[in-house]
Amino acid sequence: MAKRAFPLGKVYGLLEPGPVVLLSTWHKERANVMVQSWHTMLEFEPPLIGCVVSNRGFSFTALKATGECVLAIPPAEMLEVVVQCGNHSGRDIDKFAAFGLQTQAATKVSAPLIRGCLANLECRVADTRLVRDYCFFVLEVVRAWQDPTIADRRTLHHLGNGRFMLSGETIRSHSNAR
Amino acid sequence: MAKRAFPLGKVYGLLEPGPVVLLSTWHKERANVMVQSWHTMLEFEPPLIGCVVSNRGFSFTALKATGECVLAIPPAEMLEVVVQCGNHSGRDIDKFAAFGLQTQAATKVSAPLIRGCLANLECRVADTRLVRDYCFFVLEVVRAWQDPTIADRRTLHHLGNGRFMLSGETIRSHSNAR
Repeated sequence: MAKRAFPLGKVYGLLEPGPVVLLSTWHKERANVMVQSWHTMLEFEPPLIGCVVSNRGFSFTALKATGECVLAIPPAEMLEVVVQCGNHSGRDIDKFAAFGLQTQAATKVSAPLIRGCLANLECRVADTRLVRDYCFFVLEVVRAWQDPTIADRRTLHHLGNGRFMLSGETIRSHSNAR
Repeated sequence: MAKRAFPLGKVYGLLEPGPVVLLSTWHKERANVMVQSWHTMLEFEPPLIGCVVSNRGFSFTALKATGECVLAIPPAEMLEVVVQCGNHSGRDIDKFAAFGLQTQAATKVSAPLIRGCLANLECRVADTRLVRDYCFFVLEVVRAWQDPTIADRRTLHHLGNGRFMLSGETIRSHSNAR
């Protein structure tokens, strides 16, 4: 993976538009990955992300126990792998091996980076107050990477019932928002 | 506005892909509206939405005091109005009058529906535990409306620095996810 450090203060621009993300964990000598699109930015810098991780999945246990994960943003061309990851549980199979997902060591967390993704965000759990009621973890991004070599930078946006929206054209405005 | 009731159990499909939303409030005999894209689904049904409302804005006071708001999803063609709403504060002007935004009474909350939007979600604050630290409100959608007469159903997705992504094509997969 051609990974280039990405400024933490610009992470919001990757997540605000609502892409599907892959969430990887490392627990008990084993990596796992799940698909996720219930997330939101909470703060610009250091970037805080709120993220729902279902307590029915294998990743919940890992995230709760280790307090670490990686959020990776897959490009549209990874749709098939994303769907396969979503359709299976890490309880039953090694999703990386089963679906040909390649990993790479992160620098600040034990969860792996995922190759082929547009960006990888190394995260640590910062607040668990809403975990019991909503499975909602507050994550702090402690390191961010981008892979500038991926030509097609379209992202996937989940619509439910097997449908995904692909990101379309970018337009400029005179918005003053950050 | 041709408003058609929209099933609460399907609201997630409107918000998961990450559209910019307009958040309207009604406080002290006055309506206000802000632009927002830091939100996430928290539960399918009844639909719970987590939503960051900056405490520097006028809407924060209204939302905190009344516990009610409407989240409206503007179509791409409303870009100019959206940008104008984001660039100004309700402290200084009546944004509805200034930018030609038309409203309509909601049924379960005092905040107004916004005409011309793809969907309007009537919301009540359900949890304020993370308001102090992250300005993060948990909202329950108590009524949802869709306007089926809007032909171009593309949504706006904020990228920062004046840039917006327009939703692109929809593709189908064999995902088992809801």
